[in-house]
Parts: sequence; C-alpha cells; structure tokens
Amino acid sequence: MQIAVLLYDRFTTLDAVGAYELLARLPGAETVFVAKEAGPVRNDQGSLALVADRSLAEVPRPDIVLVPGGPDARVAMDDPEILDWLRTADATSTWTTSVCTGSLILASAGLLKDRRATTHWLAFDELRALGVEPTGERVVFDGKYVTAAGVSSGIDMALHLLGRIAGDETAQTIQLLTEYDPQPPYDAGSPEKAPAAIVAHWRGRPVESLPQS
Amino acid sequence: MQIAVLLYDRFTTLDAVGAYELLARLPGAETVFVAKEAGPVRNDQGSLALVADRSLAEVPRPDIVLVPGGPDARVAMDDPEILDWLRTADATSTWTTSVCTGSLILASAGLLKDRRATTHWLAFDELRALGVEPTGERVVFDGKYVTAAGVSSGIDMALHLLGRIAGDETAQTIQLLTEYDPQPPYDAGSPEKAPAAIVAHWRGRPVESLPQS
Repeated sequence: MQIAVLLYDRFTTLDAVGAYELLARLPGAETVFVAKEAGPVRNDQGSLALVADRSLAEVPRPDIVLVPGGPDARVAMDDPEILDWLRTADATSTWTTSVCTGSLILASAGLLKDRRATTHWLAFDELRALGVEPTGERVVFDGKYVTAAGVSSGIDMALHLLGRIAGDETAQTIQLLTEYDPQPPYDAGSPEKAPAAIVAHWRGRPVESLPQS
Repeated sequence: MQIAVLLYDRFTTLDAVGAYELLARLPGAETVFVAKEAGPVRNDQGSLALVADRSLAEVPRPDIVLVPGGPDARVAMDDPEILDWLRTADATSTWTTSVCTGSLILASAGLLKDRRATTHWLAFDELRALGVEPTGERVVFDGKYVTAAGVSSGIDMALHLLGRIAGDETAQTIQLLTEYDPQPPYDAGSPEKAPAAIVAHWRGRPVESLPQS
C-alpha cells in the first residue's frame, strides 16, 4: 500500500500533515511526499518547507493519493504536469483524496465530475465554478473519492479512511496513540458555529485573501 | 513576537505542525523552525523531513518556544546542546511550551521542576521519573509553561494560547479559518474512552515501542 502526498508551492501544512500523521500509521503502508521535483517545498505561511523525497515521475501508481489545499491552490490547478500526474495516478488508485482546497485541484483535473465533494467553506463558490456542488459535510465519500473540508478536517478524513481500509480497531488504535480527543476551548470551527460577526467579516472573501500570519 | 519550533531527529510531525499551523497565524508573529544545524530533519516515521531554516545559535531569544515530542524524545533529552539552548531561550521567553513527550525534554532541561505538566499518556511514568507528576489534562498551564498531551493535542494548546495572547476573537477567527470543528468517527482518543482491550494492549509499553507505520 503506497500513499503519495502531493506538495506544491504554498500548500497549507496541516492539510497535508493532519491526514498524513494518522494515515501513514496504517500497518504495512509506505508513504512518500511527492512534488514536480524532489526537494524542499515551501508552505503558504512561508515559514516552513517540507521535503518531497520523490518527483511525480518517480511515483506513478500510488494506492492512495492525498492532495492538500492552500490559499494559492491555483498554483496546482493551472499546472498541466500536476494535473496529468493526478489523472494518471487516479487511473489506478484505490483512493483519491483531498483536504481543503485540494478538491479544487482534483476538480481541475476532471476527477470530480458528477461527484459529491466538499472544500473549505470559503471556497464553495470556486468549487461550484468547477461544476461541483459542495455538500458542506466535513468528510465526503463518493466511491473512491474522498474530500474533506478546511485544513484540520484531514484528521477526521484519515480516521474514516483507516476504518474503511483496516477496520474499526486499527482506526481506534491510531486515534488513541495520537490522542485525538479534541477539546477546543471555543466552538467556532464552522460558519454555523462561529460568532456571526466573525463569519460575516470573512464570508465572500476569496480564499486567496486569507491572512497567513 | 518570534515563535521558535524545535526540530530534532525522529520528532513526531503533527506534534509540531498541529500547534504551528494555528499559532503561526497570530497577527504579527514570525515563526522559525530551528535545529542544531539548519537543514532537513527527518521525522519518527522516516517518511518526511521538515526543514529547519535556522540553527539553534541563530535564534537565542524567541518569545515562544515550542517543543514537539517523539517516540525517541531521548535524542533531545540526552543532548546538552539542545538542553542548553532550551534553558537560554526559556530565560527570556514569554511562553515555553511542549506537545506530547516534548515535556520530557523540558523536564530534562530542568524547566518543569515543581510545576504542573502533562505528556502522552504512555509516557506518564517517564515524566514521573523526571520528578514531574502528570496531571492527565489535555492542556496544562502553569505560569508561562504550557504542556499538552499526545500528538494532536497541540492544536487545542494553540487555541488556548491564542486566546491568552490575542483574545477570544482572534482565537475564534483562527479556529474558523482552519475549520477546527472536530468530528472524529470514533470516540477512542484517550485511555478513558478507547475500547478497554486496545488500551490494555498498549498500557505499560514504553513510548519508544509505538508502531511508526
């Protein structure tokens, strides 16, 4: 079981790492971070680079494809080499997945046509513009396509996937070992729950305008 | 406001990145990943390296120190250069923080003496052996020292810290923009909640024995 995590300039780190940290603990899995060229890839905030150990060409047939989002997902959406790799990898993948605006990239590759999917709540219109109606759920399964909402939702997606792939006990074990027992001090993690003034301030802004630090 | 995230061989990625992703969005903050030497530092699972942009010597006075854990936290606990840096940084820091077994490293540097603190539930005995009684809470504040439980708890710690530093509205905004609205499909994230058979299987094992993939 090979898991490939796609990196591209200005990706959002937790999109990739939240799902990675749990999913890569799947017994027997090999995980590899990939980018157009092997080497460090800097994130959206500019303060961290992750190393892609392999180029896209070196990892043509992963079993699981994981595509993180970012405020500049267009970097990947407009890159024919990345889109070609996604289409090729998807042709043989068992699961094709995304977190946050990663679904805009999957949609740009033509992989979400007529499918149920979601994205970061601020990117709903952008997903619609690509012909996909966002469901607003936190994790959406449609066949082998799994898309998650904003940034931190990749952790929940990974647990769902672990359960489907390896069963409840393995998923619960990994939840226990990563102590994923969330206790946020606020209940402001979705536009339905956050204070109305904060939601109003952000709603309608393009996701590219989000503050990075 | 300068935030320094310590990296060392075989750190756990989400320990560092969960807290980083939210904390680094603090308005006006500069975040820098540091290690003994600048360059890539490989994680516990072996499948990912993060780049430390600066050496410890280049970042002597961060305002916030963040120490991630790892199954081999001893790499840092036994390293005089890392412990010296922690003591020096702590002398002028506003907040000294850890996630998971990062608190074993803070304790090894002598920074948690007579303080309330916590760590990964499988490392309670190791924290006790360093003279600190783990509280079992998910996030523990004791003055400027903030310690969090296992791996994913750094996200909750970051939200608490954001509230203290910048106020509720900033913390809630960052929670909303990272869509931290946890919906795990299982309720197995702590030894009190996970199926008893799974907890029994792991309890008493040293944290170094945890499976990495």
